Amino acid sequence: MYAAGDVRVENVPDAAIVDPTDAVVRVTRACICGSDLWPYASMEPSERGQSMGHEAIGVVEDVGSQVDAIKKGDVVVMPFAFSDGTCAFCHEGLPTACVHVGFFGNNGTNGAQAEALRIPFADGTLYPLPVGEDDALMPSLLTLSDVMGTGHHAAVVANVAPGTRAAVVGDGAVGLCAVIAAKRLGAEQIIIMGRHEDRLALARDFGATDVVSERGEDAVQRVRELTGGEGVHSVLECVGHGASMETAIGIARPGGAVGRVGVPQHTDIPGSLPAFFGNITIGGGPAPVRAYLDDLLPDVLEGRIDPGRVFDRTVDLDGVPDGYRAMADREAIKVMVNP
Amino acid sequence: MYAAGDVRVENVPDAAIVDPTDAVVRVTRACICGSDLWPYASMEPSERGQSMGHEAIGVVEDVGSQVDAIKKGDVVVMPFAFSDGTCAFCHEGLPTACVHVGFFGNNGTNGAQAEALRIPFADGTLYPLPVGEDDALMPSLLTLSDVMGTGHHAAVVANVAPGTRAAVVGDGAVGLCAVIAAKRLGAEQIIIMGRHEDRLALARDFGATDVVSERGEDAVQRVRELTGGEGVHSVLECVGHGASMETAIGIARPGGAVGRVGVPQHTDIPGSLPAFFGNITIGGGPAPVRAYLDDLLPDVLEGRIDPGRVFDRTVDLDGVPDGYRAMADREAIKVMVNP
Repeated sequence: MYAAGDVRVENVPDAAIVDPTDAVVRVTRACICGSDLWPYASMEPSERGQSMGHEAIGVVEDVGSQVDAIKKGDVVVMPFAFSDGTCAFCHEGLPTACVHVGFFGNNGTNGAQAEALRIPFADGTLYPLPVGEDDALMPSLLTLSDVMGTGHHAAVVANVAPGTRAAVVGDGAVGLCAVIAAKRLGAEQIIIMGRHEDRLALARDFGATDVVSERGEDAVQRVRELTGGEGVHSVLECVGHGASMETAIGIARPGGAVGRVGVPQHTDIPGSLPAFFGNITIGGGPAPVRAYLDDLLPDVLEGRIDPGRVFDRTVDLDGVPDGYRAMADREAIKVMVNP
Repeated sequence: MYAAGDVRVENVPDAAIVDPTDAVVRVTRACICGSDLWPYASMEPSERGQSMGHEAIGVVEDVGSQVDAIKKGDVVVMPFAFSDGTCAFCHEGLPTACVHVGFFGNNGTNGAQAEALRIPFADGTLYPLPVGEDDALMPSLLTLSDVMGTGHHAAVVANVAPGTRAAVVGDGAVGLCAVIAAKRLGAEQIIIMGRHEDRLALARDFGATDVVSERGEDAVQRVRELTGGEGVHSVLECVGHGASMETAIGIARPGGAVGRVGVPQHTDIPGSLPAFFGNITIGGGPAPVRAYLDDLLPDVLEGRIDPGRVFDRTVDLDGVPDGYRAMADREAIKVMVNP
């Protein structure tokens, strides 16, 4: 990506081992993320450009001399962040705070909307899958690299538990996965807040019990009506705007929690006073999707959840620029890339 | 209080039963709260004035016809908020979100810096004590009406647990009680952040292991030095300024939590991005001190904690205006009122 709206497909030097803890992965599936739409909308022109894509599944083609757990030929999930797998934060289940953390496509690492990719800290980063590279479950498995794990993080941070009331702010792919996560964790009521008919229909399929399409104060009033005046125990904030956060705080039940996973587009969190007087907790951040794989993978493999349904368009590498356009124009919910 | 700096002692109509769920309490101990200093510093002149004081211990003098649990003659703690004791929030342990919640001294209720007081919802609000009205433990028992419960709330929300590192932002009475609470919940390291020698000495007595007197970015650096570069698991924010919240987020370890109990003087929470990228949770609000009494009272009665040491001056009712001055001038940490 060279500027807002300017995505190009280019030849770059072949991916290769640099450090002995690296692997090289041939990308078999990648995708375009809602967070890629922020620079697509606003990136300042850049001569060097930005390598894009941070979600992938692939086949390991080569490993460095210090890679033990990952083998050539493994089919692996590549979470959106790499992590060493050995530091205190990795051991505590927060690999996105790893002392060696990096985010694919940033700080000199290449992105995954590509034929192949160098993976730092392969043992800590990659997660082998017990399936072939063209398994029918690929779309759902691919969501474990980001959006399903991210929706799950929102639900975990928002303390979704059996019998609770939850609301999901945002009907993008993460919001839809957050609906799956809220249902999976036992929420009794799941309110999806959004305005796109196709997405709301999918949200209902995933377990949403109510839809709120109002915005701002009207949305807050509508959620209160749906919850006996109290608001919801758990708000899963999957947008990242100041206005969506204000709505999230407004619909939270006293003592409730907001789990935010949309990359914040605001430097301050609004609603300090209502959050305080309601004893509402605000948490969240980059989801530790690597750590969630043990928990989520069996549900995908055994068919209990089907987050791959968020993909409603597939492109090859040459189709990536149009994939960005389709997502930005809300023609597609989420675009899979099949290099 | 009629304006910033203008506190007067006046005769008002005697406290009396109004609703059948009321009690009348003769105040035997009250105090001045750090939160009273906000209006003392900035209140616009008011013709009607504001009745002050929300922390008290007293003796029940009269009860309404529907009061069952509380009896005449009981020595009781009056938490800073009244609550019905029967709603969902009261049952869940969050009486400060009670559907009938009110804060003494606000919305037409009188304050506790007085000889006597009407207590709405006496059964849900008052907590009987197994001691006489002049028991030697009175100072510590009095802190259970607010500051000790509030410091405990900061520690609970900040997830203090055995072995964690904690920092307390603010060396007022709540901050000092937060040190007690952090130690009581097992924190291994407790950093007190403040600048008043007398208070810091008391904080050390209460269990603080380190003192940081720097401010702003220097304070953040100092805490990082004291914590192996990582920051603390738990931040107990006991001030309420935007700057103190920014420091709180800055010193939190990734995955950590900030428990804020200082009434916010800012409409937005700063640090949206560092909090997000560190997966730092921000929670807290008016402490459910009524719900914490079961837990904290035995520790006071059996001498395991001694939060009453935060009182370093006692006045009678006529001395209340000078008590405000002394606290505002930082001559006194916390002033007890012995009517």
